[in-house]
Amino acid sequence: MKRKVINDPVYGFITIDNELIFDIINHPWFQRLRRIHQMAMAQLVYPGAVHTRFHHCIGAYHLMRYALFELKQKGIDITPEEETAAKIAILLHDMGHGPYSHALEGILAIDVHHEDLSAAIMVQLNKEFNGQLQMAIDIFNDVYHKKFLHQLISGQLDVDRMDYLTRDSFFTGVSEGVIGYDRILKMITVHEGDLVIEEKAIFSVEKFLIARRLMYWQVYLHKTVLVAEQMLRKIMLRAREIGATSGSPFLNKILHTAKEDIVIEHMLTDFCSIDDYDILSAIKLWMLHEDFVLASLCTAIINRKLLKINFVEENEIDAALTKYKQSIQKNYTNIDEKVVSYFVFGGMVKNQLYKTDYEKIKILYKNGSIKDISQVDNALMYKNLATAEQKYYICYLSN
Amino acid sequence: MKRKVINDPVYGFITIDNELIFDIINHPWFQRLRRIHQMAMAQLVYPGAVHTRFHHCIGAYHLMRYALFELKQKGIDITPEEETAAKIAILLHDMGHGPYSHALEGILAIDVHHEDLSAAIMVQLNKEFNGQLQMAIDIFNDVYHKKFLHQLISGQLDVDRMDYLTRDSFFTGVSEGVIGYDRILKMITVHEGDLVIEEKAIFSVEKFLIARRLMYWQVYLHKTVLVAEQMLRKIMLRAREIGATSGSPFLNKILHTAKEDIVIEHMLTDFCSIDDYDILSAIKLWMLHEDFVLASLCTAIINRKLLKINFVEENEIDAALTKYKQSIQKNYTNIDEKVVSYFVFGGMVKNQLYKTDYEKIKILYKNGSIKDISQVDNALMYKNLATAEQKYYICYLSN
Amino acid sequence: MKRKVINDPVYGFITIDNELIFDIINHPWFQRLRRIHQMAMAQLVYPGAVHTRFHHCIGAYHLMRYALFELKQKGIDITPEEETAAKIAILLHDMGHGPYSHALEGILAIDVHHEDLSAAIMVQLNKEFNGQLQMAIDIFNDVYHKKFLHQLISGQLDVDRMDYLTRDSFFTGVSEGVIGYDRILKMITVHEGDLVIEEKAIFSVEKFLIARRLMYWQVYLHKTVLVAEQMLRKIMLRAREIGATSGSPFLNKILHTAKEDIVIEHMLTDFCSIDDYDILSAIKLWMLHEDFVLASLCTAIINRKLLKINFVEENEIDAALTKYKQSIQKNYTNIDEKVVSYFVFGGMVKNQLYKTDYEKIKILYKNGSIKDISQVDNALMYKNLATAEQKYYICYLSN
Amino acid sequence: MKRKVINDPVYGFITIDNELIFDIINHPWFQRLRRIHQMAMAQLVYPGAVHTRFHHCIGAYHLMRYALFELKQKGIDITPEEETAAKIAILLHDMGHGPYSHALEGILAIDVHHEDLSAAIMVQLNKEFNGQLQMAIDIFNDVYHKKFLHQLISGQLDVDRMDYLTRDSFFTGVSEGVIGYDRILKMITVHEGDLVIEEKAIFSVEKFLIARRLMYWQVYLHKTVLVAEQMLRKIMLRAREIGATSGSPFLNKILHTAKEDIVIEHMLTDFCSIDDYDILSAIKLWMLHEDFVLASLCTAIINRKLLKINFVEENEIDAALTKYKQSIQKNYTNIDEKVVSYFVFGGMVKNQLYKTDYEKIKILYKNGSIKDISQVDNALMYKNLATAEQKYYICYLSN
Repeated sequence: MKRKVINDPVYGFITIDNELIFDIINHPWFQRLRRIHQMAMAQLVYPGAVHTRFHHCIGAYHLMRYALFELKQKGIDITPEEETAAKIAILLHDMGHGPYSHALEGILAIDVHHEDLSAAIMVQLNKEFNGQLQMAIDIFNDVYHKKFLHQLISGQLDVDRMDYLTRDSFFTGVSEGVIGYDRILKMITVHEGDLVIEEKAIFSVEKFLIARRLMYWQVYLHKTVLVAEQMLRKIMLRAREIGATSGSPFLNKILHTAKEDIVIEHMLTDFCSIDDYDILSAIKLWMLHEDFVLASLCTAIINRKLLKINFVEENEIDAALTKYKQSIQKNYTNIDEKVVSYFVFGGMVKNQLYKTDYEKIKILYKNGSIKDISQVDNALMYKNLATAEQKYYICYLSN
Repeated sequence: MKRKVINDPVYGFITIDNELIFDIINHPWFQRLRRIHQMAMAQLVYPGAVHTRFHHCIGAYHLMRYALFELKQKGIDITPEEETAAKIAILLHDMGHGPYSHALEGILAIDVHHEDLSAAIMVQLNKEFNGQLQMAIDIFNDVYHKKFLHQLISGQLDVDRMDYLTRDSFFTGVSEGVIGYDRILKMITVHEGDLVIEEKAIFSVEKFLIARRLMYWQVYLHKTVLVAEQMLRKIMLRAREIGATSGSPFLNKILHTAKEDIVIEHMLTDFCSIDDYDILSAIKLWMLHEDFVLASLCTAIINRKLLKINFVEENEIDAALTKYKQSIQKNYTNIDEKVVSYFVFGGMVKNQLYKTDYEKIKILYKNGSIKDISQVDNALMYKNLATAEQKYYICYLSN
Repeated sequence: MKRKVINDPVYGFITIDNELIFDIINHPWFQRLRRIHQMAMAQLVYPGAVHTRFHHCIGAYHLMRYALFELKQKGIDITPEEETAAKIAILLHDMGHGPYSHALEGILAIDVHHEDLSAAIMVQLNKEFNGQLQMAIDIFNDVYHKKFLHQLISGQLDVDRMDYLTRDSFFTGVSEGVIGYDRILKMITVHEGDLVIEEKAIFSVEKFLIARRLMYWQVYLHKTVLVAEQMLRKIMLRAREIGATSGSPFLNKILHTAKEDIVIEHMLTDFCSIDDYDILSAIKLWMLHEDFVLASLCTAIINRKLLKINFVEENEIDAALTKYKQSIQKNYTNIDEKVVSYFVFGGMVKNQLYKTDYEKIKILYKNGSIKDISQVDNALMYKNLATAEQKYYICYLSN
Repeated sequence: MKRKVINDPVYGFITIDNELIFDIINHPWFQRLRRIHQMAMAQLVYPGAVHTRFHHCIGAYHLMRYALFELKQKGIDITPEEETAAKIAILLHDMGHGPYSHALEGILAIDVHHEDLSAAIMVQLNKEFNGQLQMAIDIFNDVYHKKFLHQLISGQLDVDRMDYLTRDSFFTGVSEGVIGYDRILKMITVHEGDLVIEEKAIFSVEKFLIARRLMYWQVYLHKTVLVAEQMLRKIMLRAREIGATSGSPFLNKILHTAKEDIVIEHMLTDFCSIDDYDILSAIKLWMLHEDFVLASLCTAIINRKLLKINFVEENEIDAALTKYKQSIQKNYTNIDEKVVSYFVFGGMVKNQLYKTDYEKIKILYKNGSIKDISQVDNALMYKNLATAEQKYYICYLSN
């Protein structure tokens, strides 16, 4: 196996030095992640945010490599097999994401969620790779006995989050999202089988949580991003409703399969054949569609003439919806009552800093005791940690 | 006009504070540049290199704004109208680029070059904007009397190059491509109508030329990038040859118009309707095509199983071509003589540091004299400046 | 006046384009800030933190320039005279800092604080510059009628803090201290004479406060930094106590002037003649001093063999002091009761995120209303903002 | 041995995980490097350039660690003892530098060069560390049989140069000095005992040489830096000439020892007791000296009112010297013929890109052959590589 080095503007160089990992990356289903944007429609606000889920997975793999190296340096027992398995698990953690990721999740393949797809895809890949992925799957599913390996993949301080915050911050240019991933990874260790973090990293962890909060409100849930992603969903729903087809046979099949006919295991090939390119091409085609609703939503998103969006108080939503619907029906004769909700609709977004019930962040004190970060005296977030914040929004057509 | 601020990971924030410029950016033909990658297939080697031509144009606009600010600070006479015109000219300089830019130039629309398309598009936009773009067009075409404005757009040290080197270096992570654009722009001035650069910037200019050279060999003309882009061309040529159509009516029209039927002015709407998404969707569709040549090239590029590529000496090309063609015809029964050149072919790439005949870099000395950089004593590149370097390559299918 | 450009690794280039400002920077009393470290003893932990107060003042000047530019773009009325005055005021805001800044404040010149010295120095400079600094002084002293100019210099979101957090973060390499100064400065404006910040910057402001908190605990109040700076104070106090002199006549005069003999206006020349070099040279000389206390503290700090330091609970201090004092007296026969407190001592450090009583951060909502950030619903810090955190520490000699 | 992690703004974190190395770093003679600026007087032009030789040595150590890691990954045989020895050798490579490094080399201790001091200091330290440094010394002196270890410390592409270029570029803010140290270190290997570099790194090597060239002319040999460092030398020479003493007994001893009385081995303690602080304090003291020459040079450098400096042609020097000397003697009655050469003097600086005779850069081709970079066809520098560039300057007092 010759070593392969990948240039990464975020971390410098990423090294691949294992043949199995190399082969997994070269698998068409993994290569397909090159064609799925990490941040869906955020690029309409942050033009640099065009990086891909492929890049994120490679980046999370790099942080896993770094984390395991640090843990081994601290004397934590990790076998070469476990190391490879943990790296594979993080590489594959997002395999179940489809076109435009979260923005179309549950919409394209009705009510199918990416975790279930990821699981099914891993099972299939494990067959192709003659069972070599079994330990990775066990770690991913949290049935492997060294729990900390799973916690590195999925937890409050996992390498998935560390990579996406770092990477999304880099590509959007939102410098406030920068986290000290290297400092945090230098200070993790394992205590009674759990991933814990040393006391002196407490301010870096606070900072990490705040950076995440900021990225949510400023980037992921930015108003313009929100409305664009909602329009994307409306487009797909309308296309299904009226039976519109695109140039992609795989997309057509996924989109027009009734919910009761879906069997995840049977749809894997179709699912892994579609990506952002199929969606956007379909939208471009539908700009010419005879259905006014579909055509106008498609044209709007391609030319970036989006619906308006406001944040409102919860109790103002109904009145606002009524007001805008009436206004539209007065001004647009071709938008009747049946379709007006494609042009006026509301919703809610939520952002919770820290879920105290699970995915805890455990702080290891010098005296050997452990505290959950939400219990640390003087810690800034203390009482605020567990409170979820939510915002209500309303989208509407306006001339 | 309220000011609009765009986050840019490269420069921080980019400010738009002119209504006409704002409207141009919002034009669907400009928004379309969001869907054209700046670096075509380079992302197959540098996964971060997925930024768009839209982003580059906005970035070059930012550098133009900065350059004009510096020149005005030095007392150079630039009217507000000229400033707006120069900014518009650089915004629009790449409008004629089609899908995958240089990689498919002259291929999609047979023998049509992006400069001619840019010119035609500007004329059309000028009509839509009631003649407000005329000065920008004059500057772009180098018929405006203040020549330095054109030189900022197109020359050895123009803001186009400064942005693309800086930006491509940023997104690829090739730190050696970093140039000191800010130092250079601090040291430009105007002498007898020409853009010149102060003596003390001479080392930064040297460095700029070297960084460009490095980016060419290491990134733009990287072997894997080369072969991927050649395969892209072969795919389009084959699709035309066998009359393959895609789901995009506009792409079909552009691709299958005979050379003699092309009238640039008549194709603008079709041309501005296609982008990287149409091309990649077509390729994905053609993976299923009955033509073996088309299907296998398309599958190869989507799954990143590329042809092999070697750099060779010029005099070795013919023998190598013969050898590989014979090998293929022995191993692949479905590749006959008529199509073997889709799987084995050679070519040449060239990189010239500095063209002494035009686009000079003029150095202004403290005593008021002017020298071309190729004439500066002691300057590193001196004799080497004008020598073009070329490399010959050969691509071939190999099992 | 020719423009002068200063290279700054933090902001790129800093431009000086005003003759008076140029002359102020060239004044020996301002040049002296080149010889005062911005972060005193922090370099013993963060080797990069050797930047100077000169650099910080130039940097804060740059941010002031940027802030005023943005405000003018938003239509805020600022005259050229006011612009120059505000720039001068920020340039001079730290003039009263002496060697090792806060670490020796009130120690070298007994109970003299840097604000009083700054004020006296500005008065003196104003004489030398023929009254041209009067408006700057008025802004600095908050008696100028446009209050927002003073708030840019001294407030919760002033350019002083923005520069030192950004700069200290840069030079220490503590990436978590990075703040989005550019985003905040893009979003300030003036409302009824006060500096306010637009609603959409609220997360950046939160982030700014958190970054400051992190820098305090992780850097400024780092245990090792604390003990080194306390040792520095002890050294100066001991030198005064025993009448030790150094090679610097000015330091000798400042150090050995009795409190009742101090007249700030008369000590300016002496004060502005000393800097970190005088202090460190004295310490190096005193390594050879016959007084065991002085010599051993000096040797310890020069060779970085510092006292031990622990954070303790408030109620544990007395017992700990007693314990360590007894231990020392047992082990070191030459440390008697009179001097033991040079080698065992305790103290308290405090860090308050936000002082609600003054220096408010006012948020301007789209509807024109104003709220203090501590009153914003859902804002993370809400109840925690005003709580000061304090830590108790104990330093002691240990073999 | 617990691991120690040092924050470095350039590389992030630097890990020390060896007890002997830890002890060497804690030795007072090594700690003394904290008080020697890496770039002497360059801070008068680049205010950020205040980093220390301590920081550089730690940084070079980090690159050595990285280089050895990469070589081991490629299968090069390096024992743990050799690894430690190579790290120690690079840590100690600059131990012989005195105050203001090159600027005062051969001046303070007459005609003593830092290589000889380094060698003597290492011998002394080896005694203190019971012979544990012997292999490091052998590597440093190039008598160890694995030559590539020495070449990593001293050669055209050594980690010393890589660190100082990277670090000086970082702290000055001269972005053009940025080199791709990580790419180069990824591509080194060992061939027949010699350090060689893989063919594909050739453009990075070119870029490295150009960046070095740029840093020399733009930073290290910047006119203002040159004149300040020459003045520093003149000050020391004058102080010796007139027998001026400072507050530092060690500096006095070093400065006033006659050349014939110098025995390097006997001066180590004195030498290792002085640093930039002793020099600058002496200069501050001498501002008050009765000797006009000494006092005025000292005042000039402290207040940054430097002599003027011009670059001239070699054949213009004599005339210029005469002209300026006459002018001074007319305008300054207290500068007579005997001392005028303290205020008017000339000199030469030289910068050679690549010395072909020794310290070669060897390129390893895929076919196993080796070429010196100066022999590579098409390489930009080809003929220019070996040409040394020199500039003549003249410094003079001017009112």
